[in-house]
Amino acid sequence: MSNALKVIVLGTGRMGAGIITLVREKRGLELAGVYARRPRAEPTDVGDAIGLGERIGLEVSNDLQALLTRAAPSVAIQATCSRVAEAMDEIRLLLRHGVNVVSIAEEMIYPACSSPRLAEEIHALAIANDASVLGTGINPGFVLDFLIVTLTGVCQRVESITAKRVNDLSPYGATVLKSQGVGLTADAFASGVADGSVVGHVGFPESIAMMANAIGWDIDRVEETREPIVSGVERETSTITVAPGRVAGCLHTAIAYRGDTPVITLIHPQQVRPELEGVTTGDYIDIRGDPGVKLSGSPEIPGGVATAALAVNVIPHVVNAEAGLRTMAELPVPASFCGDVRRLIAERSRGCA
Amino acid sequence: MSNALKVIVLGTGRMGAGIITLVREKRGLELAGVYARRPRAEPTDVGDAIGLGERIGLEVSNDLQALLTRAAPSVAIQATCSRVAEAMDEIRLLLRHGVNVVSIAEEMIYPACSSPRLAEEIHALAIANDASVLGTGINPGFVLDFLIVTLTGVCQRVESITAKRVNDLSPYGATVLKSQGVGLTADAFASGVADGSVVGHVGFPESIAMMANAIGWDIDRVEETREPIVSGVERETSTITVAPGRVAGCLHTAIAYRGDTPVITLIHPQQVRPELEGVTTGDYIDIRGDPGVKLSGSPEIPGGVATAALAVNVIPHVVNAEAGLRTMAELPVPASFCGDVRRLIAERSRGCA
Repeated sequence: MSNALKVIVLGTGRMGAGIITLVREKRGLELAGVYARRPRAEPTDVGDAIGLGERIGLEVSNDLQALLTRAAPSVAIQATCSRVAEAMDEIRLLLRHGVNVVSIAEEMIYPACSSPRLAEEIHALAIANDASVLGTGINPGFVLDFLIVTLTGVCQRVESITAKRVNDLSPYGATVLKSQGVGLTADAFASGVADGSVVGHVGFPESIAMMANAIGWDIDRVEETREPIVSGVERETSTITVAPGRVAGCLHTAIAYRGDTPVITLIHPQQVRPELEGVTTGDYIDIRGDPGVKLSGSPEIPGGVATAALAVNVIPHVVNAEAGLRTMAELPVPASFCGDVRRLIAERSRGCA
Repeated sequence: MSNALKVIVLGTGRMGAGIITLVREKRGLELAGVYARRPRAEPTDVGDAIGLGERIGLEVSNDLQALLTRAAPSVAIQATCSRVAEAMDEIRLLLRHGVNVVSIAEEMIYPACSSPRLAEEIHALAIANDASVLGTGINPGFVLDFLIVTLTGVCQRVESITAKRVNDLSPYGATVLKSQGVGLTADAFASGVADGSVVGHVGFPESIAMMANAIGWDIDRVEETREPIVSGVERETSTITVAPGRVAGCLHTAIAYRGDTPVITLIHPQQVRPELEGVTTGDYIDIRGDPGVKLSGSPEIPGGVATAALAVNVIPHVVNAEAGLRTMAELPVPASFCGDVRRLIAERSRGCA
């Protein structure tokens, strides 16, 4: 079999670390480089940078251009940001080098939603350089959009979609907790929502766009609300202690309307230590139609490990895809392939195993 | 927009009737013909043949060759049989006319499993005639295979899969009930399993092959067992009355092993009136791995209406697919598209709605 598929990872945060670890484990993939935006005072081995407990003989690069020239990767996984606008400089450079891009930036699962011009630019640049770009992740990217699209496949008609993801923020660090308003007073939470410092979930408009496009619905408007989850008890994590009366998380809801009819309702309460007040985490999908489809699971599919899995599992589909900007709903379903990934590149199963 | 996509349906049984009805409702599709294997004494309108309550001005044809020449369809949906061997004559004729084929024959979801040579023949013939062939259906084709593959996409590693579909056979007619041994004594059920007249579910090896191929597992052996579900009470449907002590259905199980380790366990008890003995129907998926994924829904996704939906919802993917024999795991996910289906033909969404 030919040489391993060269993969570089952009980002050495919690998500980047998980993706780097998984790329190193997968047969047929070679971790050809790691890029971090933030320069370090000293040259740093990737193993040290992500807390592997051992060095791997590869230095973290702060010069993406030089890394691309040196490593000549086939695929880059971007885990550096959430927004399309923040992702663009890296994506442009990657595409100019003909590198296929998997991005876990939330807005990248349907970039035309926030950034129609940038989406067109990505698409044109990808085609010009014979490469593909795909956004993925557990949510947005899977639970509250792609999985729902997949389930509508059994429906003759769809009337409405309601889905809820109740998760636990306890494993997350300070940046995520701050963006959810954890630890604030209810008043400070309201001010944070108003000034944009309390973000809640990033990706509802993108999830709605992916589903509406797949079903053929024209959405007239999307209403989002962010409400504080005020804790009745003390909630402690390794990062923060939330006093009773303070905010333990954000209940973020989005409703998409056709005319005055709500057709998609997405509910996503995210909080630390939900179990302390008897809240059970889980994923819940309820499609009304003919037939209706109800599926649920508890606890929720864990976000971090699943997003890393998706970012790596989609690699063969992104490499095989027709050049351009793609969405999860356009490519074959991702699968957890345990063999040599090279077997999946430009090979189809044909029902002829 | 160009003329509607011409679709013909093969089969006027319960499934054929559901598919015909849905094809007529979908914008962008035109029901261009209906074929039935069994000749009728008199020319019969499709509406009369499937009990629509009105004539639709289209006669059921018993001459597929003549129908193909006259109707020149783009797509044919085959709902005439369960086995690849039984499906072949029609598929050959369709492909020689360059017609894309969707088949709900159970074995067609992974035809190489039962019929490797026929699968190769289909693949070669499809390529030679620039057409695609896809098997689909609720099960096999979705709940106990494709949906599971999709869910493994969030896993870094998969250790084992256990899935169960508990359904209600009450809506089904005599042919299906007979194949499940409904109404027999337990002894007659055992004899029926031995002589092949009690079939149980058709499709376990195919579901296992689809999943194993997607995950990259080499399966060493598959064990199937068929056990009678003996009723403790009288169970009555419009087709049959099962006396206490008689068989109400078939508990069909398949276990796939790698070495001595069971890695895929599929459990499918099918019976009439399960609620009379407190049995709740539903679909249950349990993937052990990192992370594990558990999803379930009750009642089960209803088989008939969902299979008809899938057969029609996959049409754009089959038309757009690279020529050849395809499987559900190779094409984009089906979605319940409510707009004009022609919009999906050879058009990609590109995240640029």
